[in-house]
Amino acid sequence: MRRLRLGMVGGGHGAFIGAVHRYAARLDGEWELVAGALSSDPKRAAASASGLGIVPERSYADFRYMAQAEAMREDGIDAVAIVTPNHMHAGPAVAFLDAGIHVICDKPLAATAEDADAIADAVMRSGRHFVLTHNYTGYPMIRQAREMVANGDLGALRVVQVEYAQDWLTETLSTKQADWRTDPERSGAGGCVGDIGTHAFNLATFVTGAAPESLSAELNTFVAGRRVDDDVQVRLRYKTGARGSLWASQVAVGNENGLRLRVYGDRAGIEWSQETPNSLAFTVFGEPRRILTRAGAGVTSSANVTARTPAGHPEGYLEAFATIYSDAAKLIRAGASNGTRQVPIPSIEDGLAGMRFIASCLRSSMGNGVWVDLGSAAR
Amino acid sequence: MRRLRLGMVGGGHGAFIGAVHRYAARLDGEWELVAGALSSDPKRAAASASGLGIVPERSYADFRYMAQAEAMREDGIDAVAIVTPNHMHAGPAVAFLDAGIHVICDKPLAATAEDADAIADAVMRSGRHFVLTHNYTGYPMIRQAREMVANGDLGALRVVQVEYAQDWLTETLSTKQADWRTDPERSGAGGCVGDIGTHAFNLATFVTGAAPESLSAELNTFVAGRRVDDDVQVRLRYKTGARGSLWASQVAVGNENGLRLRVYGDRAGIEWSQETPNSLAFTVFGEPRRILTRAGAGVTSSANVTARTPAGHPEGYLEAFATIYSDAAKLIRAGASNGTRQVPIPSIEDGLAGMRFIASCLRSSMGNGVWVDLGSAAR
Amino acid sequence: MRRLRLGMVGGGHGAFIGAVHRYAARLDGEWELVAGALSSDPKRAAASASGLGIVPERSYADFRYMAQAEAMREDGIDAVAIVTPNHMHAGPAVAFLDAGIHVICDKPLAATAEDADAIADAVMRSGRHFVLTHNYTGYPMIRQAREMVANGDLGALRVVQVEYAQDWLTETLSTKQADWRTDPERSGAGGCVGDIGTHAFNLATFVTGAAPESLSAELNTFVAGRRVDDDVQVRLRYKTGARGSLWASQVAVGNENGLRLRVYGDRAGIEWSQETPNSLAFTVFGEPRRILTRAGAGVTSSANVTARTPAGHPEGYLEAFATIYSDAAKLIRAGASNGTRQVPIPSIEDGLAGMRFIASCLRSSMGNGVWVDLGSAAR
Amino acid sequence: MRRLRLGMVGGGHGAFIGAVHRYAARLDGEWELVAGALSSDPKRAAASASGLGIVPERSYADFRYMAQAEAMREDGIDAVAIVTPNHMHAGPAVAFLDAGIHVICDKPLAATAEDADAIADAVMRSGRHFVLTHNYTGYPMIRQAREMVANGDLGALRVVQVEYAQDWLTETLSTKQADWRTDPERSGAGGCVGDIGTHAFNLATFVTGAAPESLSAELNTFVAGRRVDDDVQVRLRYKTGARGSLWASQVAVGNENGLRLRVYGDRAGIEWSQETPNSLAFTVFGEPRRILTRAGAGVTSSANVTARTPAGHPEGYLEAFATIYSDAAKLIRAGASNGTRQVPIPSIEDGLAGMRFIASCLRSSMGNGVWVDLGSAAR
Repeated sequence: MRRLRLGMVGGGHGAFIGAVHRYAARLDGEWELVAGALSSDPKRAAASASGLGIVPERSYADFRYMAQAEAMREDGIDAVAIVTPNHMHAGPAVAFLDAGIHVICDKPLAATAEDADAIADAVMRSGRHFVLTHNYTGYPMIRQAREMVANGDLGALRVVQVEYAQDWLTETLSTKQADWRTDPERSGAGGCVGDIGTHAFNLATFVTGAAPESLSAELNTFVAGRRVDDDVQVRLRYKTGARGSLWASQVAVGNENGLRLRVYGDRAGIEWSQETPNSLAFTVFGEPRRILTRAGAGVTSSANVTARTPAGHPEGYLEAFATIYSDAAKLIRAGASNGTRQVPIPSIEDGLAGMRFIASCLRSSMGNGVWVDLGSAAR
Repeated sequence: MRRLRLGMVGGGHGAFIGAVHRYAARLDGEWELVAGALSSDPKRAAASASGLGIVPERSYADFRYMAQAEAMREDGIDAVAIVTPNHMHAGPAVAFLDAGIHVICDKPLAATAEDADAIADAVMRSGRHFVLTHNYTGYPMIRQAREMVANGDLGALRVVQVEYAQDWLTETLSTKQADWRTDPERSGAGGCVGDIGTHAFNLATFVTGAAPESLSAELNTFVAGRRVDDDVQVRLRYKTGARGSLWASQVAVGNENGLRLRVYGDRAGIEWSQETPNSLAFTVFGEPRRILTRAGAGVTSSANVTARTPAGHPEGYLEAFATIYSDAAKLIRAGASNGTRQVPIPSIEDGLAGMRFIASCLRSSMGNGVWVDLGSAAR
Repeated sequence: MRRLRLGMVGGGHGAFIGAVHRYAARLDGEWELVAGALSSDPKRAAASASGLGIVPERSYADFRYMAQAEAMREDGIDAVAIVTPNHMHAGPAVAFLDAGIHVICDKPLAATAEDADAIADAVMRSGRHFVLTHNYTGYPMIRQAREMVANGDLGALRVVQVEYAQDWLTETLSTKQADWRTDPERSGAGGCVGDIGTHAFNLATFVTGAAPESLSAELNTFVAGRRVDDDVQVRLRYKTGARGSLWASQVAVGNENGLRLRVYGDRAGIEWSQETPNSLAFTVFGEPRRILTRAGAGVTSSANVTARTPAGHPEGYLEAFATIYSDAAKLIRAGASNGTRQVPIPSIEDGLAGMRFIASCLRSSMGNGVWVDLGSAAR
Repeated sequence: MRRLRLGMVGGGHGAFIGAVHRYAARLDGEWELVAGALSSDPKRAAASASGLGIVPERSYADFRYMAQAEAMREDGIDAVAIVTPNHMHAGPAVAFLDAGIHVICDKPLAATAEDADAIADAVMRSGRHFVLTHNYTGYPMIRQAREMVANGDLGALRVVQVEYAQDWLTETLSTKQADWRTDPERSGAGGCVGDIGTHAFNLATFVTGAAPESLSAELNTFVAGRRVDDDVQVRLRYKTGARGSLWASQVAVGNENGLRLRVYGDRAGIEWSQETPNSLAFTVFGEPRRILTRAGAGVTSSANVTARTPAGHPEGYLEAFATIYSDAAKLIRAGASNGTRQVPIPSIEDGLAGMRFIASCLRSSMGNGVWVDLGSAAR
């Protein structure tokens, strides 16, 4: 079984998430990076490509040309990873999909609703796979949590508390990462809400299997001069009757990457924190709290499938990200059909839901917290 | 220096909070329980009193009679502790205040706005001290936190996240405690919001020194047949421009008494949890997280004043509660003047603020989360 | 039921453990401090007594006179608390026992084997109760652990790891506390091993119910000029075949009062830490770890008996200490017989075992870690 | 820069550590697995090789033939990974070294002193690199700890407590992993002491930079019928005057992979736990505890060099293992000289030290804990 061939758009020297995608693609040995348009600056693109073992002829300065060239090669790429800033997702995504090449795209889906629609249309007409790297869904204990909810271990869900607290934007910051993520032209109108709020929203949806139907939000900008929000307070109502909050912040001093999820049903509750991802607290009402551990006693099959090491040998962020890549490989190897997903991998639908989440938060916040229906929201 | 003489209304056999008040009164040796109307049932009152070392002649079946009798004794009580259900606060509070006796009253202040007003009026006209046992403010690390905020250690406050999660009302429950706390006739219209939401609200106010000015709330009742709320989601806006959330729940399975506070400023952040109350996480932006400990390195004076044991010898809930009692003793020993409090002890004002909080949450929730001004709210 | 009357020897202004004993005696309302020889300096004694509500005539400058005077009073003390430095335990203990007064004595039992023998003889001939305040045995989760071991929940014990790490003597220190605890004339030949090593030893014995039969020890003194050990490494062999280590240190920087116990059997294991005393980890082999909590789900009766507050309302060091005092009150109220203890309260036997532990550690260490039989050890 | 070519001996279907080595080799993109003698059973070897993308002609059934064949190829392997049981280390190691091929070998070095000597001799005469995968030294916070000790941040070291607690061998177990690890013919005379005790020993040595000079040990076998030790208690004396304990156990129920290190100097102390490897507690005497985090505030350069993700994005076991592989790649790329290591990577010397540790523990334990000099110990 050959390795799948991967191309990459973006991710040249100095990028953060591009390197993460490459670690993720390498870990399980399913992928081989063979082509790239790593930068719009040809020299920079070539230098980056060379350092990554991409042969010169497959280092492209233009993603459109790359899509066409790769589509025509017999050994062309199976999929492309798009790791550019948000406003640069749609262009390459559409180009590669239309060239018949599967797409693995960083989140959020796009900077604008128009871009998001363009990608969705291209997915539909191409029939190619589109994988959105909501990487936190790749954590074994998150899959365990999802399975437990689905199995009814928690009973009927009542309260869902999710939060994502960081502090890196506590002060005005000018770095490559900070610049585009706080620039509405590149990140989209949502700042914190788009960058990490969508992760929290996606995680809650993934685990509960229960899409929120409406929300009330307040977006704040605490750092003077910042053009996007840096703190987000949201209340969510789920179709099932569950209720909950989502808090995302980039100014919560002392938090590095504090994504945490708590779900309570009428029978049991679970609690999970991304910074110690190998355990999941599980409490049945009236019984002592149990600490479930990745690959440990009492965890069920699907979490173990994604575990690479025995219990007590911690897996981390890159392993969870790699699981997304390996799941994408399974999808692709399973055939062209997008219809029947056998792995719970974030898709175009999740991307569109994230766009609706961003738009709804912005609309609610401008309306002083008015409840906005997520289903009907313009993206 | 003699011990102060304490009376008690409520707190007979089987009560929870009455016993807590007695532990708190005894710990520091400032108080002596000498009189009580421990139950409205005379036999039960007498039996309870006897077990507590109260002489028969000072075991009363009627609090009104007790107030008058004690006021006339030369060795009459200095203060009375009111530990009855909420709807039974106002009667005894007014009676004892009007008899010139200081009052230590459990929270929330009252079951209704009318009752609250009656108590406030009696405080005003009597000039007696009124102490509300928002006991969590007695924790040394909470006082440390308050002092750090006041000192500007956190900079300008931005985000305040407070929560109080329990699970004891996950299912329909009929016990002495559960019965009155879920009965709007006795607890007031607020259930969870009054019982523990007010604690969370008070704690955030106490530490930040910044009264919230408006709120948007959603009150939920998840257990079928329950007549009051059992889960509360609130967004708060502070006068200083800070923003934050308050979540209180009695159905969050796996949480015993999870009161937690996180405060973030533009310079530093703090995090505290009631179930491990002897430490306080403190992070200055750009520096490693520091773990401050009760009576440990780096804590300032006021927290140490309330510490009875060296660092590493944990103090708990009863010690924090006892601090309220000892602070009350200081107040009383300092003289009759209610005006100048030298100790940060919860007062009638805190009680009224809690009533406004409950009323505002109810009003906002009925208005689908409309923002309600806390200042102007009818209590 | 009247309060028991307590006297105190030692514990004047500036003392640490005297105040702790007083908090402990007050908390449950079982005791009333009515007499004391709080200091050998009469003025200091009188001043301390006055602040504690002891009437002048019962403030004594001499413990021998106090013993006789109190024994003759109709309202004489029921028991005396001895809270002096180690070398001052035997004198008062013998005097009060011989006067027919029960003794509650701080640990370790004495500074020398001769003193220990003198106390033991006095206990024997007087028939009075002698309670040694190995206070950590009063923690509810320690009692829970003891009961679980006794019930066979852990199976046959294999490994017992106990440690007690502090850092307060990391540097040369001259305070009232440090001075006598590092002076072999006052503390006895053992420093760290006597002060906290005996606590660790006692805790392991208490929980496992399995007395160690031999040990190999290394005592170290890291701070130049110090005349006693400040770090102790011990290996223990239990009669049951279990094996384990004991580590005590006063120079482990970053540890405040880190007493921790881990016990592993062939069926399950438990782990407990004094600084977070309200929980106990319990893992049955092949099952997820469970977190048992004081007064919480799954804890058995004896732990609950000692719990004053509901689960999640943390009890601490003083509550555990108070349980020793209340258990002592039960003993005394139950009658004069020392024979049948219904409460698991540290006794003269525990004190003598601690003395043998200290002596054996010293002997082993001087013999380069030779194994020393605890049973036959000269104290 | 081409990828280095890796071969592997052992690691066929069902092996645990072979897969770990492959993840580690892949993660950073420095290595490509191109050849293997994955099993001594030719069919099994071929099947395993095929699944790993090794072309049939480079799947060998015999490691000796593989060494010669690869040495003769122009595109022959740069290094071989030896992932067989301990008794099968020496044969391949010598064969590949003598063929001029670098060796990356799993720990412990060998099953017998003779084997260890043979490997050491081959390293000497070949001049090739020999890397022992004491993988825990690859954790960023362990490198941080090592650097802090070396910088004098802790002052003069006093106490070193290291432990490695597991529970997987609590009962008699017959699996591929358990079988050879409890068979003295294959694992060597040490069971627990060799399998995980050597890791703990190596970690303490790596961080402190201070080789222990003597030890006193007790090895126990708790499971009936087991032919090797399953619990190890050791006291260590360091050349610098530091003292400490090492505990390793495979029967400590409730522990998955509990490798923990605590080091205390006269100025500060550090504490680390492998199951939450991204943080390191650091306490300067008299200051609050600081929590240093991987890639976070206050960590120094070398730890960041090995960090692949930002703070709060946890790295785990595989990343630490991968760092060993990438460091090996650096060594090899730096030239043939074994003399000047610029990276702190475990070597033949560490392997020999581990063998001396095992032998000394066995000898001490047979001598009832007699102190054994590590320097002079026969391996």
